[in-house]
Amino acid sequence: MSRLFLRTLREDPVDAEVDSHRLLVRAGYIRRAAPGIYTWLPLGLRVLARVEAIVREEMDAAGAQEVHFPALLPREPYEASGRWTTYGQGIFRLKDRREGDYLLAPTHEEMFTLLVKDLYSSYKDLPLTLYQIQTKYRDEARPRAGLLRGREFIMKDAYSFDVDLARFERSYDAQRHAYQRIFDRLGLEYVIVKASSGLMGGTRSEEFLSPCAIGEDTFVRSPGGYAANVEAVTTPVPEAIPYEDAPPAHVEDTPDTPTIETLVAHANAHQPRADRAWTAADTLKNVVLAVTPPGGERELLVVGVPGDREIDPKRLEDVLAPADVEPATEADFAPHPELVRGYLGPAVLGPNRPGGIRYLLDPRVVAGTTWITGANEPGRHVFGLVAGRDFTADGTIEAAEVRPGDPAPDGSGPLELARGIEIGHIFDLGTTFSDALGLTVLDENGKAIVPTMGSYGVGVSRAVAALAETHHDERGLTWPVHVAPAQVHIVATGKDDAVFAAAEELGAALTARRIDVLLDDRRKVSAGVKFADGELLGMPVIVVVGRGLADGTIEVRLRASDLREDVEVARAADHVAELVGSLADS
Amino acid sequence: MSRLFLRTLREDPVDAEVDSHRLLVRAGYIRRAAPGIYTWLPLGLRVLARVEAIVREEMDAAGAQEVHFPALLPREPYEASGRWTTYGQGIFRLKDRREGDYLLAPTHEEMFTLLVKDLYSSYKDLPLTLYQIQTKYRDEARPRAGLLRGREFIMKDAYSFDVDLARFERSYDAQRHAYQRIFDRLGLEYVIVKASSGLMGGTRSEEFLSPCAIGEDTFVRSPGGYAANVEAVTTPVPEAIPYEDAPPAHVEDTPDTPTIETLVAHANAHQPRADRAWTAADTLKNVVLAVTPPGGERELLVVGVPGDREIDPKRLEDVLAPADVEPATEADFAPHPELVRGYLGPAVLGPNRPGGIRYLLDPRVVAGTTWITGANEPGRHVFGLVAGRDFTADGTIEAAEVRPGDPAPDGSGPLELARGIEIGHIFDLGTTFSDALGLTVLDENGKAIVPTMGSYGVGVSRAVAALAETHHDERGLTWPVHVAPAQVHIVATGKDDAVFAAAEELGAALTARRIDVLLDDRRKVSAGVKFADGELLGMPVIVVVGRGLADGTIEVRLRASDLREDVEVARAADHVAELVGSLADS
Repeated sequence: MSRLFLRTLREDPVDAEVDSHRLLVRAGYIRRAAPGIYTWLPLGLRVLARVEAIVREEMDAAGAQEVHFPALLPREPYEASGRWTTYGQGIFRLKDRREGDYLLAPTHEEMFTLLVKDLYSSYKDLPLTLYQIQTKYRDEARPRAGLLRGREFIMKDAYSFDVDLARFERSYDAQRHAYQRIFDRLGLEYVIVKASSGLMGGTRSEEFLSPCAIGEDTFVRSPGGYAANVEAVTTPVPEAIPYEDAPPAHVEDTPDTPTIETLVAHANAHQPRADRAWTAADTLKNVVLAVTPPGGERELLVVGVPGDREIDPKRLEDVLAPADVEPATEADFAPHPELVRGYLGPAVLGPNRPGGIRYLLDPRVVAGTTWITGANEPGRHVFGLVAGRDFTADGTIEAAEVRPGDPAPDGSGPLELARGIEIGHIFDLGTTFSDALGLTVLDENGKAIVPTMGSYGVGVSRAVAALAETHHDERGLTWPVHVAPAQVHIVATGKDDAVFAAAEELGAALTARRIDVLLDDRRKVSAGVKFADGELLGMPVIVVVGRGLADGTIEVRLRASDLREDVEVARAADHVAELVGSLADS
Repeated sequence: MSRLFLRTLREDPVDAEVDSHRLLVRAGYIRRAAPGIYTWLPLGLRVLARVEAIVREEMDAAGAQEVHFPALLPREPYEASGRWTTYGQGIFRLKDRREGDYLLAPTHEEMFTLLVKDLYSSYKDLPLTLYQIQTKYRDEARPRAGLLRGREFIMKDAYSFDVDLARFERSYDAQRHAYQRIFDRLGLEYVIVKASSGLMGGTRSEEFLSPCAIGEDTFVRSPGGYAANVEAVTTPVPEAIPYEDAPPAHVEDTPDTPTIETLVAHANAHQPRADRAWTAADTLKNVVLAVTPPGGERELLVVGVPGDREIDPKRLEDVLAPADVEPATEADFAPHPELVRGYLGPAVLGPNRPGGIRYLLDPRVVAGTTWITGANEPGRHVFGLVAGRDFTADGTIEAAEVRPGDPAPDGSGPLELARGIEIGHIFDLGTTFSDALGLTVLDENGKAIVPTMGSYGVGVSRAVAALAETHHDERGLTWPVHVAPAQVHIVATGKDDAVFAAAEELGAALTARRIDVLLDDRRKVSAGVKFADGELLGMPVIVVVGRGLADGTIEVRLRASDLREDVEVARAADHVAELVGSLADS
């Protein structure tokens, strides 16, 4: 440490929103170069290299072969797949000196597909899984949380190519197993959840989430083992209700009730029902949105959900992707006087009004359900409006929020919600890219077939942040042994030359046993500062060589548990080596 | 090889200009993604990884510490150093979604300087040498020769920080020594030549060139040990000649002599000299150029050189950098009727004509030398014009070509010229970047001092190409053992299961000895194709397991020398391991 390029910081960086960012900067692992763009300092680079090595070993063990694509790529392949357009503002684009269009690639489906098309031609060449560990770019609207959502970041991306869906399942399962091994070895807790396939469209899609309160992803779990990203949760559709005997709907004056809350209060005061009070769940809320497909026209969409639920923007965005969606503005409402804000009802929407605005309903609004909703006049609502009898829609949409206690779609019990960091995503690409880029191989009869592809990503730099986020305490980082920059941190304290000599000797003995050692040999730094640095930096084993040396002992501390014991100097190297071994095995 | 993602090609790629490019593509090591932008396939990536590992080991051994900067960087630091402008069209620029200016970094002097400024503050923190192995970008006007001049490429760049020049020399020498070790270990022949510092300006600058006929760099060597890049060669200035007795100059009609050749022929025909014939060396050629400094105005410059020498565009560009220079065009000449093309002489140039065009002379045009040159009238030249007496210039310029036989500047004999590939460049940055970016540290008296910096680059991807360029024959690649994707290539021939079993067994035995093996276990490929692939791929040791197995022998071939011997199967693993060991030691 007397020569290491390192300065630990006492102050948190002003822009740090999460613990991993705060601690990785304070401990001198990373440094910000621009918003969402970071420099790796020596200790951080070591963690990154260890994560990469584990990912590489498990990919190789799973039979994937490593290649390396450029980050700077021409427009054409992304034009062919349509992603040059669908990425919108999300990618960095640039021109070369000949005005050729280029991008900094966010993922490489197109290039892998073209490479296989370039070199392979027969069913005998498959199955094939290729991967790379590579720097990627996304022009995030809101880069945040340090390495968790950056604009330049490192990913492992792999792609499988198979002759059919059955064989694809085996490639998928091999990657899925490799991912479990990777995260186990990294020491990262994870949950595998069903995920939305988003733009890519396919049949299988799973995310590996590291549970963590600051995670950007919300997921659900049921007692029966169902787990899904909240975007992928489907709503169990209730049975339709017979409505032959339902009374007719009737319009009531409900002045000054533009919100669900005011409406429910008014209804209970002026139109009380006999059996129970009205609740928000009795109302149907119609939300006006503006949707813009890539390269298309901005159009209005109304989504109807039970009044006790909000629309979840992430579920909404996911289901409408690649279109952009936002709340309708004054300008959107202007040409539509029929949309009476606060009192909007189905009568003026969707198929109820030919040529009208597209209208989609929450799946819970099944035929026979009865609602209070807008009467399309200021200060008036309609009561007892029956779905299927009095109104219909253009379809359903999974846009309402998922709430704790909602039933799991597979009937495995009530859902609980939690947050996680997405550290991996594996999914079926189907033939989307093979079709778009013309990849075919000949089968045994000489007939061209279109390979089925899979896509498999690990956020490598994000995994470093996820590790820091899930492995720290109030004093600093607590790295798992397989990813720590060094397994052992030896701290020499005081001014006695013998102490420094003993510390160096122990370091050499451990290095000879292939244990990586960080030696704090700084002469003019107090023991207190050295201990604080040791806890901030977070090596799993901290060895203090100091006053005890006169009595023939050193102190061995486990960083994470803070267990401490004195050990005879003569046995120190053996003891520490055993300790590191036991941490590595556990 | 039955599973390896590889297709060797029989045809040379159409765009391949050099052997390394041709063979690396044909042997399936790399594949073009865009002009000057390549994808690394599995075997190529292995070579690259081995080169990187050697570079990393030697950097670490030299005490340099590894970090990793982003490639995507904001404009500001490059604006502060002036390079945002001086790079001109040579870099990729882009904007993010907030219209912020970014670049893809071609080198990282600014970022390293800012990082050290950010974390360090005392003379006690120095010396410091940091490095990275990182992907870099240049928007080359003419990307060419595959990996030799690409637009996305991998470099090791290191930067040293020292308190003074004396200490800088030690950092420089440590890097210089590490470079020698790196290229020795890679098996790359190299010459260390004096180099021009180009834009950076400093006192020490050396290039490591791998001698090679297709190299872009021309360098010189003398019998006495002088070696320099041709841009760095300085012309020994001849002694001035007394001109008191020189006859006066006189103008002659020389109709139709716009070239040196026609002028010399006319002079010999109509103004013959008594002692010998006129030659081109008696004439002074004045070349009109247009020079544009970055962000500045295009201006004319006239360079006068002896008529027997051409201007070397690379020497000219180097000495005028960062300005752009090109031959003057019609439009440049238009406002200058005094410039009579073909008959231009010093009388209308430089200090001879107040406010005139800047005029620089070759260093050989010393006072007292006598010249035939233009008389600034069509069809007329002046004879006997004496430098220093009849004309002067604004200065001298090292722009004339260097020719074999020219004297070395240090008096060590006549120069010979050769070509090489630049694989490394180490040079003094002085305080250029420390000054520009405000890096100071406090000395022992608390006074701010400006650290002296050095810059040290290895072209990592280029080294792979240089290795291929210098290690191949007409049949394919011949990798040195330390960089080969595998040390041993086992070829199983025929259809006999016992052959394939023996080949696998030998492979396993070698792998157990930590020798990397490529096993050609393809069942439906002829022996001839396998041998051709083996020679194209270029592993240093090729083992053929085939018909000889029945007699208990296998054949061991050395790829580079083509030495072949039969070895008993029982001894095969030992023998091959020894052979690999002896190649590694040699």
